[in-house]
Amino acid sequence: LTLTFVGLGLGAKGVSLEGVEAMRSAKTIYLEYYTTPHDPSLLGEIQKATGKEVTVVDREFVEDGKELLRRAVAEDVVLAVPGDPMVATTHNDLRVRATELGVATKLVHGVTAAAAVASASGLHYYKFGRTVTVTREGLGKMDQVYCMLHENLLLGAHTLLLLEYDVEGREGVAPAAAVEGLLRSERNFKRGVVSDQTLVLVICRVGRGDAKLEAGSFGEVSGRDYGAPPYSLVIPGRLHFTEVEAISAIFRMPSPKVHGNSEAVKRTAETLVPKYVAKTRKALESVKGKMDPRYGPVLENAELYLRDAEEHLMKGDDGLAMLSVGYAEGLLDSLSFAGVVKIDW
Amino acid sequence: LTLTFVGLGLGAKGVSLEGVEAMRSAKTIYLEYYTTPHDPSLLGEIQKATGKEVTVVDREFVEDGKELLRRAVAEDVVLAVPGDPMVATTHNDLRVRATELGVATKLVHGVTAAAAVASASGLHYYKFGRTVTVTREGLGKMDQVYCMLHENLLLGAHTLLLLEYDVEGREGVAPAAAVEGLLRSERNFKRGVVSDQTLVLVICRVGRGDAKLEAGSFGEVSGRDYGAPPYSLVIPGRLHFTEVEAISAIFRMPSPKVHGNSEAVKRTAETLVPKYVAKTRKALESVKGKMDPRYGPVLENAELYLRDAEEHLMKGDDGLAMLSVGYAEGLLDSLSFAGVVKIDW
Repeated sequence: LTLTFVGLGLGAKGVSLEGVEAMRSAKTIYLEYYTTPHDPSLLGEIQKATGKEVTVVDREFVEDGKELLRRAVAEDVVLAVPGDPMVATTHNDLRVRATELGVATKLVHGVTAAAAVASASGLHYYKFGRTVTVTREGLGKMDQVYCMLHENLLLGAHTLLLLEYDVEGREGVAPAAAVEGLLRSERNFKRGVVSDQTLVLVICRVGRGDAKLEAGSFGEVSGRDYGAPPYSLVIPGRLHFTEVEAISAIFRMPSPKVHGNSEAVKRTAETLVPKYVAKTRKALESVKGKMDPRYGPVLENAELYLRDAEEHLMKGDDGLAMLSVGYAEGLLDSLSFAGVVKIDW
Repeated sequence: LTLTFVGLGLGAKGVSLEGVEAMRSAKTIYLEYYTTPHDPSLLGEIQKATGKEVTVVDREFVEDGKELLRRAVAEDVVLAVPGDPMVATTHNDLRVRATELGVATKLVHGVTAAAAVASASGLHYYKFGRTVTVTREGLGKMDQVYCMLHENLLLGAHTLLLLEYDVEGREGVAPAAAVEGLLRSERNFKRGVVSDQTLVLVICRVGRGDAKLEAGSFGEVSGRDYGAPPYSLVIPGRLHFTEVEAISAIFRMPSPKVHGNSEAVKRTAETLVPKYVAKTRKALESVKGKMDPRYGPVLENAELYLRDAEEHLMKGDDGLAMLSVGYAEGLLDSLSFAGVVKIDW
């Protein structure tokens, strides 16, 4: 006796031959497609491919799970789900409960939208950082997404944003709304993570016959309508030249317009250390020759540590760069606090 | 005229109904399975499902691509590949070249191992950070993998390591070798990223009939043989309680033994700032009352900045914490360089 979770992949014919076999040999087939955007002809295609009756169930039926597990104890059951069956935590929970009841479980994987978008984008698959789902609820507070994007860009990684589409409510997040949410966070944080010039790939209805791929700047996307959902956005990090070629060919954008978004983003220390070093060096110059020679070693050390700070920054040792420039400032300011010299910062 | 890239997914029956249709209606079907681990019965299953002749081609044929593109200009061609067709950069390059030649291209996605492993692991899909492939060549220099693992763990993200398996050469990377490589990097860097206690999930032959899921510590895995490849490793970051339950049920491990690996990992500043603050505070105490009162403001400011450093660290502002503790040290050391007091660091 096995409870098999069958992923139906993307589109109406995304199920694998293995998935079809599992459904054919099961006693009961449940289909849950309310938690995932799916093709309207999906149910018909599944019935045609398997020649079997399929019971459509809702989110509650799966979350509750009692009836499903009761059956799985007595007969072979399939729970079929668009995409991959374990990407939603609800289905994972059911798998755990079945295992705890001693019911054998099996997974037939399906293509999930996140993997397909990464693949379709033409960017290198393993350069994607963490994926984020943008929900309607989350639109008002995009700060977390903004921070994760910042982290990804600093690492040179690409960011995939899946825009929520609620099948039951027929409501979702449009590309323009997501982009505007990020620009709003930029106005709050002012970290230079995104701007009107940020390049974004808009991938609509991935894996379906009418899939659409468009590239544009945040400024362009924020005013555009992309037709029927679901949508995903890819914000490229650092681009390899083959990725530039791929975007140019696949998204029909002239190569010179294609650019990564990592180059414009700076680490906190990259902004602060050069500023502090310049300020301290200026203060140092302003006091030279105005003090008793006994303070010579203080000034020499301050100069050495400013150089250290610059070297650490170049090597990417941000923490040590900040420590060194702070130390140099402290050496100088000590003389000022002690009344030895007046420093004009 | 269309060049269709068909992903064959995992196992011998991983191809989707859409993929089968695309192959049935194509004039020529090429199958390239040397760049990806695949099931030995794959070719037979494809021929059975499509009822068509399939030409097996090698990596060179695809990399060169001339013959394939020449055909695609004249007739409908399918290039079938295990997994997803665009995960390997070779196939992406061919797609770009076809587009540039004016040949329409189409993608039929397939399940790729990385997505299936994440899904099968029972961990939350969207908590995975960047995925890394560990090659035999790379085994000797795992430092980059070690650093990426460190970054992922600091973010609480899970790390997926795909272990290379060379189909042509029948050679690959075993779980024990990958784990030992990371422990070697730990001995070099000493950042406390991994240890014998690090929990790792070993997922063998994902998506196939004889898939095997085992969990263990680095110490356990380093001595174990896992049978036939391919293998993947998942190193969990911070675990949600439902993820603990899932690992416990799926990997048959008692819950109390299940733990994330993020908790043990510290940011550089978390290690350094408390050490520097303690050292500077001790030095500060040792000179109090031994100097002319004119130096009072120096000591007061040093004390204030040490407190600032601690507060910045608590708020996660690592850079400012390092800057502040460096400044406090500088204030004190200036007195020492100027010969005002001898500080015993």
